[in-house]
Amino acid sequence: VSPEEFRQAGHQLIDWIAEYRSSLESRPVRADVAPGQVAAALPAEPPTGLHTMDELLADLDRVVVPGMTLVQHPMHYGWFPSNASLASVLGDIASSGLGGLGISWESCPALTEVEEVVCDWLRQLTGLTEQWSGTIHDTASTACLVALLAARERATDHSQVRGGLAGVARPPVVYSTAQAHSSVRKAALLAGFGQDNLRIVAEDPATHAMEPAALARSMADDAAAGRTPGAVVATVGTTGTTAMDPVAEIVEVAAAQRAWVHVDAAMAGSAMLLPEHRHLWHGVEGADSVSWNPHKWMGTILDTSLFYVRDVEHLVRVMSTNPSYLQSNADGEVVQYRDWGVPLGRRFRALKLWFHLRLDGVDAIRDRIRRDLANARWLAEQVEAHPDWELVAPVPLQTVCVRHRPAGLDGEALEAHTMGWVDALNRSGRAYLTRSMLDGSWMVRVSIGVESTERHHVEALWALMTRVAAEQLAGARS
Amino acid sequence: VSPEEFRQAGHQLIDWIAEYRSSLESRPVRADVAPGQVAAALPAEPPTGLHTMDELLADLDRVVVPGMTLVQHPMHYGWFPSNASLASVLGDIASSGLGGLGISWESCPALTEVEEVVCDWLRQLTGLTEQWSGTIHDTASTACLVALLAARERATDHSQVRGGLAGVARPPVVYSTAQAHSSVRKAALLAGFGQDNLRIVAEDPATHAMEPAALARSMADDAAAGRTPGAVVATVGTTGTTAMDPVAEIVEVAAAQRAWVHVDAAMAGSAMLLPEHRHLWHGVEGADSVSWNPHKWMGTILDTSLFYVRDVEHLVRVMSTNPSYLQSNADGEVVQYRDWGVPLGRRFRALKLWFHLRLDGVDAIRDRIRRDLANARWLAEQVEAHPDWELVAPVPLQTVCVRHRPAGLDGEALEAHTMGWVDALNRSGRAYLTRSMLDGSWMVRVSIGVESTERHHVEALWALMTRVAAEQLAGARS
Repeated sequence: VSPEEFRQAGHQLIDWIAEYRSSLESRPVRADVAPGQVAAALPAEPPTGLHTMDELLADLDRVVVPGMTLVQHPMHYGWFPSNASLASVLGDIASSGLGGLGISWESCPALTEVEEVVCDWLRQLTGLTEQWSGTIHDTASTACLVALLAARERATDHSQVRGGLAGVARPPVVYSTAQAHSSVRKAALLAGFGQDNLRIVAEDPATHAMEPAALARSMADDAAAGRTPGAVVATVGTTGTTAMDPVAEIVEVAAAQRAWVHVDAAMAGSAMLLPEHRHLWHGVEGADSVSWNPHKWMGTILDTSLFYVRDVEHLVRVMSTNPSYLQSNADGEVVQYRDWGVPLGRRFRALKLWFHLRLDGVDAIRDRIRRDLANARWLAEQVEAHPDWELVAPVPLQTVCVRHRPAGLDGEALEAHTMGWVDALNRSGRAYLTRSMLDGSWMVRVSIGVESTERHHVEALWALMTRVAAEQLAGARS
Repeated sequence: VSPEEFRQAGHQLIDWIAEYRSSLESRPVRADVAPGQVAAALPAEPPTGLHTMDELLADLDRVVVPGMTLVQHPMHYGWFPSNASLASVLGDIASSGLGGLGISWESCPALTEVEEVVCDWLRQLTGLTEQWSGTIHDTASTACLVALLAARERATDHSQVRGGLAGVARPPVVYSTAQAHSSVRKAALLAGFGQDNLRIVAEDPATHAMEPAALARSMADDAAAGRTPGAVVATVGTTGTTAMDPVAEIVEVAAAQRAWVHVDAAMAGSAMLLPEHRHLWHGVEGADSVSWNPHKWMGTILDTSLFYVRDVEHLVRVMSTNPSYLQSNADGEVVQYRDWGVPLGRRFRALKLWFHLRLDGVDAIRDRIRRDLANARWLAEQVEAHPDWELVAPVPLQTVCVRHRPAGLDGEALEAHTMGWVDALNRSGRAYLTRSMLDGSWMVRVSIGVESTERHHVEALWALMTRVAAEQLAGARS
């Protein structure tokens, strides 16, 4: 494909994308395909010959689009918002077109320095002080792994340059609540801590937030038993219910044990764009690392996960690699992002944020987040006011956790009913919700925050939920 | 940005990219900016208000482009090829436009299943048998980390679900040569093995390939000393000189110790598209994992690193996470790629490969790789025939490693001369080469393989090298 052919095909593709994004609301939210159906529509053997852009676009329509669950559909309330604002898509296209190779400052100075500047803009926009330095990881899972690696090495006085964890006398321990994201446990296991050195700290039964006193007791027990309290992951906006671990108190407890505090604000970070919400991570300045995902609610397209640390020197000591073929005359004067994370090569991800902030504007992004918060409050009020529905957790952000629980329905019947109505609703293709376990029972998360979701969509969802749940109940009883 | 605004801005951007990619040859290869210069051209404070696409494009021209080292320039011979074929750029744009969210099969069935199919196409195209299952990681660094985590858990009987590495009686050991990529050491340290459990196996002094007998001795010594031989990383195409570790013999040695064999073919994998080159990884079918980067020589835009394993069940056991909010009715029938790597969320990367293979065509990709191999042979012949130049390593692929070494020049003077002429050549902006250490001395790598690099470019490079090196020598002596 020559630049001239690219120009032609690119225009076709841009038009196709514009059409596709305009059409979302008219399509079913959930992919309506059976396992294996997409694969079966493709040839089992590699393509031969040359294909045209028309053929590719026809295959996108025929094979790919029916297999998409539309997370940018205004009736998508599943998982967490995964906005892919078209402003940021333009930045992503610019990144692809430029084809920059980020393996060192020298291999693409602009890639490194725009990332430095843009991460600093987001630092300012979320009210973090100048002590923080940022980079972009793919996801918060990776950010958490990097944080726990940094914590592991601090807790073991850099065991990796000696005998590794196998040579450590006092094994380091990681603390979080049962509400922490599954990536916390995964990161701890991958980093070699081991399941036996992973503590589930008690949470407040009403708010599902970590109990600092329980954390202090657990840490003291471990220290007394010959282990090293290594890291606490404090979640600001848990995946289940957007619970808020109390960062200031956790930081204080952790400081007494010199444990690393990683603040996982993957979801709630977007709310920190609003000064009135920053109390939710009060104490964050005392943490060691913070991550949050503009690719969720804020809406910069995946993969855009911000990661800030205070002690860059320590991070680089843990993550660095400096082979001869990457050494350059600028070493020492520049940032080498390869030493801030796992991969050597990186894309020019900062352009997504740069375009998003400038083409959509910070004010509009803030207004949208305030709109979603108001919509969630509205829905929570409807749920609370309805005798057959219950809110199962506080609503500090935009996720409303509910059960349909008419009088007399409980135990296994309630579990089956919850699974039943949410599956029926999702199958309808008219909206999409996520079910999740809380305290051993299924509940349903309504996660508001798609760019195009307006109040009338939330009203339509509420009508749909009440209707489908009632029908499900009637069907089960008939 | 609405779909209609996106359409307008997208057309502008496509035209801008087409112009940019057409203009590469007329630009200096290396970014001509000082450290901090790009950052200084951007506002220190976040943008306010709304900006137009015209302003963004003007800033790309003013700030970003001068800060790009042009790895798609036909006179770029640095590091390894980092082609970003415009066919794959179109696939990347489609991926961005679709905005798929890959956190489970259900969140985007097409994302998962197209990845399965396309990875299988590449398996067939490189002659691997059906025992291999593939996925796409961001980079070979991440693939290596995943491989070493899988190896660690096999060697320690899944220590991660008990006390982790700190509870292991016989620490696992990792083996590679000094020519292995820096990401191997990094991955071993991050995975917790520790520097003391990392062995540098002797290499053949002429070919820089691993000595299987030395590997066998080293493994036996470790086993006798109470350690567990855990993993061997065999490199097919090392970064320094594209040396080829003998996979078949390594597999045989490792099998005796039940050690995991990871084949890092990041660079050479592209050559496996050619049946006549597959002898270079002879024995690969006995390895446990293989990775290679279409985003290098083959030219699918970064980040596209293929990773194949034989024992998917083991990999998933090590990497899996299955929280309630991600469980779906399709579990058990589908692939969940979140359990094959570190990040939970993934982009729709398979489209880059799909578009690349179909729009450029496999035949054309193979022809281009053969062209580059012939160009490298031609350059190697010139170097060998010239009395003042030497080839410092065999040329099994497309990288030619050289020194300019006129009679009488050696020791510190030779080192200074090598550094001097390559820096002068790179500063000129007319071509770009990478210097690298080999056996304690600087040498220069000429890595051929940019899509647009034709024979006349290699001829021009050879003329430039000989002239700049001679000038440098004359300048140093005057």
